[in-house]
Amino acid sequence: MAKPLIQLALDSLDFGTTLRLASLAAPSVDILEIGTPCIKHNGVPLVKAMRALFPDKKLFVDLKTMDAGEYEATPFYDAGADICTVLGVADLSTIKGVVTAANNHGKQAQVDLINVPNKAERAREAAELGAHIIGIHTGIDQQLAGQTPFADLNEIVGLGLNVQVSVAGGIKPETVQQVVQSGANIIVVGGAITGSDDPAAAARKIRELVDAA
Amino acid sequence: MAKPLIQLALDSLDFGTTLRLASLAAPSVDILEIGTPCIKHNGVPLVKAMRALFPDKKLFVDLKTMDAGEYEATPFYDAGADICTVLGVADLSTIKGVVTAANNHGKQAQVDLINVPNKAERAREAAELGAHIIGIHTGIDQQLAGQTPFADLNEIVGLGLNVQVSVAGGIKPETVQQVVQSGANIIVVGGAITGSDDPAAAARKIRELVDAA
Repeated sequence: MAKPLIQLALDSLDFGTTLRLASLAAPSVDILEIGTPCIKHNGVPLVKAMRALFPDKKLFVDLKTMDAGEYEATPFYDAGADICTVLGVADLSTIKGVVTAANNHGKQAQVDLINVPNKAERAREAAELGAHIIGIHTGIDQQLAGQTPFADLNEIVGLGLNVQVSVAGGIKPETVQQVVQSGANIIVVGGAITGSDDPAAAARKIRELVDAA
Repeated sequence: MAKPLIQLALDSLDFGTTLRLASLAAPSVDILEIGTPCIKHNGVPLVKAMRALFPDKKLFVDLKTMDAGEYEATPFYDAGADICTVLGVADLSTIKGVVTAANNHGKQAQVDLINVPNKAERAREAAELGAHIIGIHTGIDQQLAGQTPFADLNEIVGLGLNVQVSVAGGIKPETVQQVVQSGANIIVVGGAITGSDDPAAAARKIRELVDAA
Protein backbone atom coordinates (compact mmCIF):
# COMPACT_ATOMS: atom_id res chain seq x y z
CA MET A 1 0.00 0.00 0.00
CA ALA A 2 1.30 3.44 -0.91
CA LYS A 3 2.15 5.64 2.03
CA PRO A 4 -0.48 8.32 2.60
CA LEU A 5 0.22 11.96 1.94
CA ILE A 6 0.54 14.27 4.92
CA GLN A 7 -1.41 17.53 4.79
CA LEU A 8 -0.64 20.45 7.10
CA ALA A 9 -3.76 22.43 8.08
CA LEU A 10 -2.92 26.10 8.60
CA ASP A 11 -5.58 27.68 10.79
CA SER A 12 -3.97 30.93 11.87
CA LEU A 13 -5.73 34.05 10.63
CA ASP A 14 -2.50 35.94 10.13
CA PHE A 15 -0.97 36.12 6.65
CA GLY A 16 2.66 36.13 7.81
CA THR A 17 2.20 33.50 10.52
CA THR A 18 0.63 31.21 7.94
CA LEU A 19 3.64 31.55 5.65
CA ARG A 20 6.06 31.06 8.54
CA LEU A 21 4.38 27.89 9.84
CA ALA A 22 4.19 26.52 6.30
CA SER A 23 7.93 27.16 5.82
CA LEU A 24 8.81 25.37 9.04
CA ALA A 25 6.77 22.26 8.32
CA ALA A 26 7.11 22.09 4.53
CA PRO A 27 10.12 19.73 4.43
CA SER A 28 8.05 17.03 6.16
CA VAL A 29 4.62 17.41 4.54
CA ASP A 30 3.16 16.89 1.06
CA ILE A 31 0.18 19.23 1.04
CA LEU A 32 -0.18 22.72 2.51
CA GLU A 33 -3.75 23.59 3.50
CA ILE A 34 -5.07 27.12 3.86
CA GLY A 35 -7.87 26.57 6.39
CA THR A 36 -11.35 28.02 6.01
CA PRO A 37 -11.11 30.90 8.51
CA CYS A 38 -7.69 31.75 7.05
CA ILE A 39 -8.87 31.91 3.42
CA LYS A 40 -11.94 33.95 4.33
CA HIS A 41 -9.68 36.31 6.22
CA ASN A 42 -6.92 36.70 3.63
CA GLY A 43 -8.45 35.86 0.26
CA VAL A 44 -6.77 35.01 -3.02
CA PRO A 45 -3.56 36.99 -2.31
CA LEU A 46 -2.57 34.34 0.26
CA VAL A 47 -3.06 31.56 -2.30
CA LYS A 48 -0.78 33.40 -4.71
CA ALA A 49 1.87 33.95 -2.03
CA MET A 50 1.78 30.28 -0.99
CA ARG A 51 1.99 29.17 -4.62
CA ALA A 52 5.04 31.36 -5.18
CA LEU A 53 6.78 30.30 -1.96
CA PHE A 54 6.10 26.58 -2.30
CA PRO A 55 6.14 25.71 -6.00
CA ASP A 56 6.71 22.00 -5.33
CA LYS A 57 4.00 21.41 -2.72
CA LYS A 58 0.40 20.60 -3.33
CA LEU A 59 -1.75 23.55 -2.28
CA PHE A 60 -5.14 22.91 -0.66
CA VAL A 61 -7.73 25.66 -0.18
CA ASP A 62 -10.48 24.75 2.26
CA LEU A 63 -13.23 26.83 0.66
CA LYS A 64 -16.06 24.68 2.06
CA THR A 65 -18.18 25.93 -0.83
CA MET A 66 -21.96 25.80 -0.23
CA ASP A 67 -23.32 27.51 -3.36
CA ALA A 68 -22.25 28.83 -6.76
CA GLY A 69 -19.67 26.05 -6.99
CA GLU A 70 -17.91 26.69 -10.28
CA TYR A 71 -18.01 30.49 -9.86
CA GLU A 72 -16.52 30.43 -6.38
CA ALA A 73 -13.82 27.80 -6.96
CA THR A 74 -12.52 28.80 -10.40
CA PRO A 75 -10.42 31.83 -9.32
CA PHE A 76 -8.76 29.76 -6.60
CA TYR A 77 -7.65 27.13 -9.11
CA ASP A 78 -6.53 30.03 -11.33
CA ALA A 79 -4.44 31.33 -8.42
CA GLY A 80 -2.65 28.02 -7.98
CA ALA A 81 -4.78 25.75 -5.79
CA ASP A 82 -4.38 22.02 -6.47
CA ILE A 83 -7.37 20.99 -4.34
CA CYS A 84 -10.46 22.99 -3.30
CA THR A 85 -13.24 21.72 -1.04
CA VAL A 86 -17.01 21.76 -1.42
CA LEU A 87 -19.41 20.83 1.36
CA GLY A 88 -21.12 17.46 1.19
CA VAL A 89 -24.26 19.14 2.59
CA ALA A 90 -24.40 21.38 -0.50
CA ASP A 91 -26.61 20.67 -3.49
CA LEU A 92 -25.27 18.06 -5.89
CA SER A 93 -25.26 20.82 -8.53
CA THR A 94 -22.84 22.81 -6.35
CA ILE A 95 -20.57 19.78 -5.90
CA LYS A 96 -20.66 19.23 -9.64
CA GLY A 97 -19.69 22.87 -10.21
CA VAL A 98 -16.53 22.56 -8.12
CA VAL A 99 -15.65 19.27 -9.86
CA THR A 100 -16.05 21.06 -13.21
CA ALA A 101 -13.79 23.92 -12.08
CA ALA A 102 -11.17 21.39 -10.95
CA ASN A 103 -11.32 19.40 -14.18
CA ASN A 104 -11.05 22.58 -16.24
CA HIS A 105 -7.66 23.14 -14.54
CA GLY A 106 -6.49 19.51 -14.38
CA LYS A 107 -6.79 19.77 -10.59
CA GLN A 108 -8.82 18.05 -7.85
CA ALA A 109 -12.05 18.66 -5.91
CA GLN A 110 -12.63 17.33 -2.41
CA VAL A 111 -16.07 16.78 -0.92
CA ASP A 112 -16.06 17.46 2.84
CA LEU A 113 -18.48 15.17 4.70
CA ILE A 114 -18.66 17.40 7.79
CA ASN A 115 -22.21 17.20 9.22
CA VAL A 116 -23.50 15.04 6.35
CA PRO A 117 -26.20 12.79 7.85
CA ASN A 118 -25.74 9.78 5.52
CA LYS A 119 -22.04 9.87 4.73
CA ALA A 120 -21.85 6.63 2.70
CA GLU A 121 -24.69 7.67 0.39
CA ARG A 122 -23.26 11.16 -0.19
CA ALA A 123 -19.75 9.73 -0.74
CA ARG A 124 -21.14 7.45 -3.46
CA GLU A 125 -23.02 10.34 -5.10
CA ALA A 126 -19.93 12.55 -4.98
CA ALA A 127 -17.79 9.82 -6.53
CA GLU A 128 -20.34 9.41 -9.32
CA LEU A 129 -20.13 13.16 -9.99
CA GLY A 130 -16.37 12.80 -10.41
CA ALA A 131 -15.14 14.13 -7.08
CA HIS A 132 -11.49 13.23 -6.68
CA ILE A 133 -11.22 13.13 -2.88
CA ILE A 134 -13.71 12.42 -0.07
CA GLY A 135 -12.87 14.22 3.15
CA ILE A 136 -13.81 12.63 6.47
CA HIS A 137 -13.89 15.57 8.78
CA THR A 138 -14.69 16.00 12.44
CA GLY A 139 -15.02 19.75 12.82
CA ILE A 140 -13.28 21.81 15.46
CA ASP A 141 -16.58 22.45 17.25
CA GLN A 142 -17.32 18.69 17.15
CA GLN A 143 -13.83 17.83 18.45
CA LEU A 144 -14.49 20.09 21.40
CA ALA A 145 -17.55 17.90 22.05
CA GLY A 146 -15.34 14.79 22.11
CA GLN A 147 -15.97 13.39 18.62
CA THR A 148 -13.34 11.72 16.40
CA PRO A 149 -13.30 10.82 12.68
CA PHE A 150 -12.18 7.18 13.03
CA ALA A 151 -15.48 5.28 12.72
CA ASP A 152 -16.48 7.35 9.67
CA LEU A 153 -13.07 6.74 8.11
CA ASN A 154 -13.45 2.97 8.34
CA GLU A 155 -16.94 3.13 6.81
CA ILE A 156 -15.93 5.26 3.83
CA VAL A 157 -12.70 3.37 3.09
CA GLY A 158 -14.76 0.18 3.19
CA LEU A 159 -16.96 1.38 0.34
CA GLY A 160 -14.09 0.88 -2.09
CA LEU A 161 -15.02 3.93 -4.18
CA ASN A 162 -12.74 5.17 -6.94
CA VAL A 163 -11.67 8.21 -4.93
CA GLN A 164 -8.95 9.14 -2.50
CA VAL A 165 -9.96 9.36 1.14
CA SER A 166 -8.70 12.17 3.36
CA VAL A 167 -9.18 12.32 7.10
CA ALA A 168 -9.06 15.32 9.43
CA GLY A 169 -10.02 16.09 12.97
CA GLY A 170 -7.58 16.31 15.86
CA ILE A 171 -5.05 13.77 14.50
CA LYS A 172 -1.89 13.71 16.60
CA PRO A 173 1.22 11.53 17.11
CA GLU A 174 -0.69 9.08 19.32
CA THR A 175 -3.37 8.42 16.67
CA VAL A 176 -1.65 8.95 13.32
CA GLN A 177 -0.50 5.33 12.84
CA GLN A 178 -4.04 4.06 13.46
CA VAL A 179 -5.19 6.38 10.66
CA VAL A 180 -2.50 5.08 8.29
CA GLN A 181 -3.57 1.50 9.00
CA SER A 182 -7.20 2.43 8.32
CA GLY A 183 -6.25 3.02 4.70
CA ALA A 184 -6.57 6.80 4.43
CA ASN A 185 -4.79 8.29 1.40
CA ILE A 186 -4.34 11.74 2.92
CA ILE A 187 -3.85 12.50 6.62
CA VAL A 188 -4.49 16.03 7.81
CA VAL A 189 -2.59 17.30 10.84
CA GLY A 190 -3.08 20.79 12.20
CA GLY A 191 -2.73 21.78 15.83
CA ALA A 192 -0.36 18.89 16.62
CA ILE A 193 2.16 20.66 14.39
CA THR A 194 1.16 24.33 14.36
CA GLY A 195 0.49 24.41 18.11
CA SER A 196 3.83 22.81 18.96
CA ASP A 197 6.74 24.76 20.43
CA ASP A 198 8.83 23.37 17.55
CA PRO A 199 6.60 22.97 14.47
CA ALA A 200 9.46 21.71 12.28
CA ALA A 201 10.28 18.93 14.72
CA ALA A 202 6.61 18.09 15.23
CA ALA A 203 6.15 17.74 11.47
CA ARG A 204 9.25 15.50 11.23
CA LYS A 205 7.85 13.32 14.01
CA ILE A 206 4.54 12.89 12.16
CA ARG A 207 6.46 12.00 8.99
CA GLU A 208 8.50 9.39 10.85
CA LEU A 209 5.39 7.85 12.38
CA VAL A 210 3.61 7.70 9.03
CA ASP A 211 6.63 6.20 7.29
CA ALA A 212 7.02 3.58 10.05
CA ALA A 213 3.36 2.59 10.22
CA MET B 1 -46.23 46.84 9.76
CA ALA B 2 -42.77 48.34 9.43
CA LYS B 3 -41.38 48.47 5.94
CA PRO B 4 -38.73 45.80 5.37
CA LEU B 5 -35.09 46.66 4.94
CA ILE B 6 -33.56 46.27 1.49
CA GLN B 7 -30.26 44.43 1.28
CA LEU B 8 -28.00 44.64 -1.77
CA ALA B 9 -26.09 41.39 -2.44
CA LEU B 10 -22.71 42.09 -4.01
CA ASP B 11 -21.50 39.00 -5.83
CA SER B 12 -18.71 40.33 -8.01
CA LEU B 13 -15.28 38.94 -7.18
CA ASP B 14 -13.54 42.21 -7.94
CA PHE B 15 -12.65 44.53 -5.05
CA GLY B 16 -13.16 47.77 -7.00
CA THR B 17 -16.30 46.66 -8.82
CA THR B 18 -17.82 45.75 -5.47
CA LEU B 19 -17.15 49.22 -4.09
CA ARG B 20 -18.48 50.88 -7.26
CA LEU B 21 -21.73 48.90 -7.33
CA ALA B 22 -22.23 49.57 -3.62
CA SER B 23 -21.74 53.31 -4.20
CA LEU B 24 -24.29 53.37 -7.00
CA ALA B 25 -27.01 51.54 -5.09
CA ALA B 26 -26.30 52.79 -1.57
CA PRO B 27 -28.78 55.71 -1.61
CA SER B 28 -31.66 53.26 -2.09
CA VAL B 29 -30.69 50.34 0.14
CA ASP B 30 -30.28 49.77 3.89
CA ILE B 31 -27.82 46.89 4.04
CA LEU B 32 -24.76 46.21 1.90
CA GLU B 33 -23.90 42.54 1.60
CA ILE B 34 -20.47 41.19 0.71
CA GLY B 35 -21.40 37.84 -0.88
CA THR B 36 -19.68 34.57 -0.08
CA PRO B 37 -17.48 34.23 -3.19
CA CYS B 38 -16.55 37.90 -2.80
CA ILE B 39 -15.47 37.64 0.84
CA LYS B 40 -13.49 34.45 0.22
CA HIS B 41 -11.79 36.20 -2.66
CA ASN B 42 -11.01 39.52 -0.96
CA GLY B 43 -10.93 38.83 2.76
CA VAL B 44 -11.10 41.26 5.67
CA PRO B 45 -9.56 44.21 3.76
CA LEU B 46 -12.78 44.53 1.77
CA VAL B 47 -14.86 44.64 4.96
CA LYS B 48 -12.66 47.46 6.26
CA ALA B 49 -12.93 49.39 2.98
CA MET B 50 -16.72 49.03 2.91
CA ARG B 51 -16.96 50.08 6.56
CA ALA B 52 -14.91 53.21 5.83
CA LEU B 53 -16.80 54.11 2.64
CA PHE B 54 -20.30 53.52 4.01
CA PRO B 55 -20.28 54.44 7.70
CA ASP B 56 -24.07 54.82 7.83
CA LYS B 57 -25.07 51.55 6.15
CA LYS B 58 -25.48 48.18 7.78
CA LEU B 59 -22.72 45.86 6.57
CA PHE B 60 -23.51 42.18 6.00
CA VAL B 61 -20.77 39.57 5.49
CA ASP B 62 -22.04 36.31 4.05
CA LEU B 63 -19.47 34.05 5.70
CA LYS B 64 -21.68 30.92 5.56
CA THR B 65 -19.67 29.60 8.47
CA MET B 66 -19.69 25.79 8.83
CA ASP B 67 -17.20 25.23 11.67
CA ALA B 68 -15.21 27.11 14.30
CA GLY B 69 -18.02 29.64 14.58
CA GLU B 70 -16.74 32.15 17.10
CA TYR B 71 -13.15 31.97 15.83
CA GLU B 72 -14.12 32.58 12.22
CA ALA B 73 -16.71 35.31 12.78
CA THR B 74 -15.02 37.42 15.47
CA PRO B 75 -12.48 39.20 13.22
CA PHE B 76 -15.23 40.15 10.77
CA TYR B 77 -17.26 41.82 13.51
CA ASP B 78 -14.01 43.46 14.65
CA ALA B 79 -13.56 44.80 11.10
CA GLY B 80 -16.99 46.40 11.06
CA ALA B 81 -19.58 43.78 10.06
CA ASP B 82 -23.06 44.31 11.50
CA ILE B 83 -24.36 40.88 10.44
CA CYS B 84 -22.45 37.67 9.71
CA THR B 85 -24.03 34.41 8.54
CA VAL B 86 -23.66 30.86 9.77
CA LEU B 87 -25.05 27.83 7.93
CA GLY B 88 -28.16 26.19 9.31
CA VAL B 89 -26.65 22.81 8.32
CA ALA B 90 -23.74 23.46 10.72
CA ASP B 91 -23.58 22.02 14.22
CA LEU B 92 -25.65 23.89 16.80
CA SER B 93 -22.36 24.56 18.62
CA THR B 94 -21.10 26.39 15.52
CA ILE B 95 -24.29 28.46 15.30
CA LYS B 96 -23.94 29.27 18.97
CA GLY B 97 -20.35 30.37 18.40
CA VAL B 98 -21.34 32.94 15.77
CA VAL B 99 -24.18 34.19 18.00
CA THR B 100 -21.64 34.62 20.80
CA ALA B 101 -19.29 36.56 18.53
CA ALA B 102 -22.17 38.80 17.46
CA ASN B 103 -23.33 39.43 21.02
CA ASN B 104 -19.77 40.23 22.11
CA HIS B 105 -19.86 43.09 19.60
CA GLY B 106 -23.50 44.16 20.06
CA LYS B 107 -24.12 42.96 16.49
CA GLN B 108 -26.29 40.32 14.81
CA ALA B 109 -25.94 36.72 13.59
CA GLN B 110 -28.01 35.29 10.75
CA VAL B 111 -28.67 31.59 10.27
CA ASP B 112 -28.88 30.69 6.58
CA LEU B 113 -31.37 27.87 5.95
CA ILE B 114 -29.93 26.97 2.54
CA ASN B 115 -30.21 23.16 2.06
CA VAL B 116 -31.55 22.60 5.60
CA PRO B 117 -33.91 19.60 5.35
CA ASN B 118 -36.30 20.59 8.19
CA LYS B 119 -36.28 24.37 8.02
CA ALA B 120 -38.95 25.03 10.67
CA GLU B 121 -37.23 22.85 13.26
CA ARG B 122 -33.81 24.40 12.62
CA ALA B 123 -35.28 27.92 12.67
CA ARG B 124 -36.77 27.21 16.12
CA GLU B 125 -33.46 25.81 17.40
CA ALA B 126 -31.56 28.80 16.02
CA ALA B 127 -33.99 31.24 17.65
CA GLU B 128 -33.55 29.43 20.98
CA LEU B 129 -29.77 29.82 20.64
CA GLY B 130 -30.27 33.57 20.25
CA ALA B 131 -29.85 33.97 16.50
CA HIS B 132 -31.06 37.41 15.49
CA ILE B 133 -32.07 36.74 11.89
CA ILE B 134 -33.24 33.64 10.00
CA GLY B 135 -32.31 33.68 6.32
CA ILE B 136 -34.55 31.96 3.80
CA HIS B 137 -32.23 31.34 0.93
CA THR B 138 -32.62 29.68 -2.42
CA GLY B 139 -29.04 29.29 -3.62
CA ILE B 140 -27.78 30.36 -7.01
CA ASP B 141 -27.36 26.73 -8.08
CA GLN B 142 -30.93 26.01 -6.90
CA GLN B 143 -32.29 29.07 -8.73
CA LEU B 144 -30.74 27.74 -11.91
CA ALA B 145 -32.81 24.58 -11.26
CA GLY B 146 -35.98 26.70 -11.10
CA GLN B 147 -36.50 26.91 -7.31
CA THR B 148 -37.79 29.99 -5.45
CA PRO B 149 -37.79 30.93 -1.74
CA PHE B 150 -41.47 31.91 -1.44
CA ALA B 151 -43.02 28.75 0.09
CA ASP B 152 -40.25 28.54 2.70
CA LEU B 153 -40.70 32.23 3.51
CA ASN B 154 -44.39 31.77 4.30
CA GLU B 155 -43.64 28.76 6.51
CA ILE B 156 -40.95 30.48 8.56
CA VAL B 157 -42.82 33.78 8.97
CA GLY B 158 -45.81 31.73 10.12
CA LEU B 159 -43.83 30.30 13.05
CA GLY B 160 -43.94 33.69 14.78
CA LEU B 161 -40.43 33.30 16.22
CA ASN B 162 -38.75 36.20 18.00
CA VAL B 163 -36.33 36.77 15.11
CA GLN B 164 -36.18 38.83 11.96
CA VAL B 165 -36.74 36.96 8.71
CA SER B 166 -34.62 37.66 5.66
CA VAL B 167 -35.31 36.30 2.20
CA ALA B 168 -32.95 35.88 -0.74
CA GLY B 169 -32.97 34.09 -4.05
CA GLY B 170 -33.59 35.73 -7.38
CA ILE B 171 -35.90 38.49 -6.08
CA LYS B 172 -36.67 41.06 -8.81
CA PRO B 173 -39.10 43.93 -9.47
CA GLU B 174 -41.85 41.52 -10.50
CA THR B 175 -41.70 39.56 -7.21
CA VAL B 176 -40.52 42.06 -4.59
CA GLN B 177 -43.99 43.25 -3.55
CA GLN B 178 -45.14 39.65 -3.00
CA VAL B 179 -42.16 39.26 -0.65
CA VAL B 180 -43.06 42.43 1.28
CA GLN B 181 -46.61 41.19 1.71
CA SER B 182 -45.33 37.83 2.97
CA GLY B 183 -43.97 39.64 6.02
CA ALA B 184 -40.23 39.44 5.45
CA ASN B 185 -38.18 41.89 7.52
CA ILE B 186 -35.22 41.99 5.15
CA ILE B 187 -35.39 41.58 1.37
CA VAL B 188 -32.20 40.70 -0.47
CA VAL B 189 -31.79 41.81 -4.06
CA GLY B 190 -28.69 41.02 -6.07
CA GLY B 191 -28.60 40.49 -9.80
CA ALA B 192 -31.74 42.57 -10.41
CA ILE B 193 -29.66 45.58 -9.33
CA THR B 194 -26.02 44.65 -9.97
CA GLY B 195 -26.77 43.08 -13.35
CA SER B 196 -28.76 46.10 -14.53
CA ASP B 197 -27.39 48.58 -17.08
CA ASP B 198 -28.21 51.28 -14.53
CA PRO B 199 -27.73 49.88 -11.01
CA ALA B 200 -28.64 53.18 -9.31
CA ALA B 201 -31.98 53.37 -11.14
CA ALA B 202 -32.65 49.67 -10.56
CA ALA B 203 -32.08 50.13 -6.83
CA ARG B 204 -34.41 53.18 -6.78
CA LYS B 205 -37.08 51.14 -8.55
CA ILE B 206 -36.84 48.37 -5.93
CA ARG B 207 -37.09 51.00 -3.17
CA GLU B 208 -40.21 52.51 -4.75
CA LEU B 209 -41.84 49.10 -5.13
CA VAL B 210 -41.10 48.19 -1.50
CA ASP B 211 -42.34 51.53 -0.21
CA ALA B 212 -45.55 51.20 -2.27
CA ALA B 213 -46.30 47.60 -1.34
